[in-house]
Amino acid sequence: MVQLQRCAVIGLGLIGGSFAAALKSHGLAACVVGVDSNAEALREALMYGYIDEAVEMGSGSVLASCEVVFVATPVRSMSKIFAQLNVILPPTALVVDFGSVKGELAWALNQGISFRYLPAHPIAGGERSGIHAAQSTLFQGKKFIICPFDREAYASDIALMEQLILVIGGQSEVMDTAEHDTIFAAVSHLPHVVAYALVNALRTMESCSGIKLGHYPGAGFRDFTRIASSDEVMWSDIALTNRTEILHALDAFEETLGGIRQAIEQHDEAYLLATFRHAREYRDQIVKNMAERQKTTV
Amino acid sequence: MVQLQRCAVIGLGLIGGSFAAALKSHGLAACVVGVDSNAEALREALMYGYIDEAVEMGSGSVLASCEVVFVATPVRSMSKIFAQLNVILPPTALVVDFGSVKGELAWALNQGISFRYLPAHPIAGGERSGIHAAQSTLFQGKKFIICPFDREAYASDIALMEQLILVIGGQSEVMDTAEHDTIFAAVSHLPHVVAYALVNALRTMESCSGIKLGHYPGAGFRDFTRIASSDEVMWSDIALTNRTEILHALDAFEETLGGIRQAIEQHDEAYLLATFRHAREYRDQIVKNMAERQKTTV
Repeated sequence: MVQLQRCAVIGLGLIGGSFAAALKSHGLAACVVGVDSNAEALREALMYGYIDEAVEMGSGSVLASCEVVFVATPVRSMSKIFAQLNVILPPTALVVDFGSVKGELAWALNQGISFRYLPAHPIAGGERSGIHAAQSTLFQGKKFIICPFDREAYASDIALMEQLILVIGGQSEVMDTAEHDTIFAAVSHLPHVVAYALVNALRTMESCSGIKLGHYPGAGFRDFTRIASSDEVMWSDIALTNRTEILHALDAFEETLGGIRQAIEQHDEAYLLATFRHAREYRDQIVKNMAERQKTTV
Repeated sequence: MVQLQRCAVIGLGLIGGSFAAALKSHGLAACVVGVDSNAEALREALMYGYIDEAVEMGSGSVLASCEVVFVATPVRSMSKIFAQLNVILPPTALVVDFGSVKGELAWALNQGISFRYLPAHPIAGGERSGIHAAQSTLFQGKKFIICPFDREAYASDIALMEQLILVIGGQSEVMDTAEHDTIFAAVSHLPHVVAYALVNALRTMESCSGIKLGHYPGAGFRDFTRIASSDEVMWSDIALTNRTEILHALDAFEETLGGIRQAIEQHDEAYLLATFRHAREYRDQIVKNMAERQKTTV
C-alpha cells in the first residue's frame, strides 16, 4: 500500500480536516503537518489525532520536506498560498488543491510555479464547516475529481491520488478542468446561488409584509435551503471564480423558471404537469444513482 | 377527551391516511370511514387499521351519518367533492378540508353548501406520497392551520379541531385565509416551483451539453431538490389555485436572484458576502425555531 512519509494539509476546515483524518486513520501518511491561520483549529486537529504537527500559516518553511501538500482553503486565497509554496517547496514536491472551481483558476495557479501541481475536487462539501464537522469517513462513497493539465506528464501523480482516494473510500474520476467547471456550475454552484436568493426573498417578503414568515416553514423548506447555511466566504469566492459558467447555468435556470411562470399566468395545466413530472423523474433517477454509488463503495 | 362517533376521511394519501391513522391510534374516533377512488389504497388502509370501513369515491351515501368529513384530496378535485357532499350531508355535519391553498378556493368551496365548512391545512406534507408513506405520528410537532370564515360562528368547530390536533401532537393556529395563502406561497409554494425549475434546468443543460450532469450531484443537490420529487398533480393544482400569491412571491425571488446575478457580473464581492451571510443567518434562525418547536411537542 502507498504511504507518504511526510505531507501537509493547508486549511483545516471540513474538507482539509477530514482529509487529514482519513490519511491518518488509514495509515496513508507517517506524518501529516497541519497548517491553518486559526490556532484553535490547529489545536483541535492535533487533539483529535488528525495531524502530527501544527504550523501557523506563514511560518511554512517546515513544509520544505513534504512530498505532497494538499491545499484545502477557500479558492480565492490559493494564489497567495501558491506564491508562498513556490518559495519553499523543491521542484519534486507535489501540490494538490481541493478547490470547488478549476478552469481558469487552476490555469492561473499553474503559472510561474516550480513544483508539480495537480488540481482536484472532492465532492464532499456540506453546509457544516470547520474542523468540528470533519470526519475521517467523509469521502466514503463520494466522487473525487482529478483535473490534470496533462495526463501523461502527471501520470504518477494521478496514480498516487487515485490510490489515496481508493483507500479512503472515494471514487476518483479524471476530467478536463473546463468540463469540471461546467458540471459543477450546474449541479452545485447554481443550486447554492438559487438557495441563497430564495432565503433572501423570504427575508425581504417578511420585512415588506410584516408577517412573520419565518415561523411557518416545514421540513421541505428546511431541506431545500440547507445549502443556504453554507459559509458565505467560500461561496462568494466560488461565485466570482466560476463566474462565466455560473452565469450560463443561471441563464438556463431563468429560462425554465420563466416557462413555469408563464404557464401559471396562462393557467397552462398541461405544461405544469409535464414540467413537474419531468423534474420528478429526472431527480428520482439522479438520487437512485447516488444511492447505488454509495452502496457499492461503503 | 373528545371522541367522534363516526367520521370520514376522503383521500387516503400521505395526509389523509396519516390523519385517519392518528385518529384511530389515539382513540379519537369510534369509526373512521375511508373514501378513495383507488381500491388498493382502501385495502391497505383497512389492513393497517387506519380506517374501519372502506367506501369507493362516488358511492358516498354512507357518509350521511358522519359527524365530520375530512377532505384530503388534491385541491382542484375539492369543488366536485363538495358538490357531492352537499347532496348527502345534513346541515349539522362539519366538513374540514386539508388543502394547501385556502383564500379564493375556500371562498368558492363555501358557496351554496348547506353543511358547516372549516378550512384547515396541516403543515406536514413531503415529497413522499400515498398511503404507503402515511404514519400516525406525521403531525407530531407540526403546525396545523385553521382558517375559519367567522371565528364566532365556528367557535365550537374550531374548538373540536384544536382538541383533535392537540391530541395527535400538532400545534393549531387560527388565521385568515388570505394571510394563509400569502405565507404558504412564500415558504412552501415558491420553493417547490423553484426546485422544479432548477431540476429541469439541469435536465436541459444535460441534453444541450451532452455531458452526463446527472452523475455528479452531491448531498447538497439531493436535499435541495427533494421537494422536486413531489407529486406533480398536487403541485400543478396548487400552482394554479394560489396563482396570484405565487406570482408575487416569484417577483420577490426574481428580484433577489437578479441582484445576485448582477453582483456576480460586476465582481461585487461585498454584495455577495452580505447577501449570502444574511441568508445564512435568517435560515439558521428559522431552523433553530423549527427544532425548538419540535422539542416542545414531541
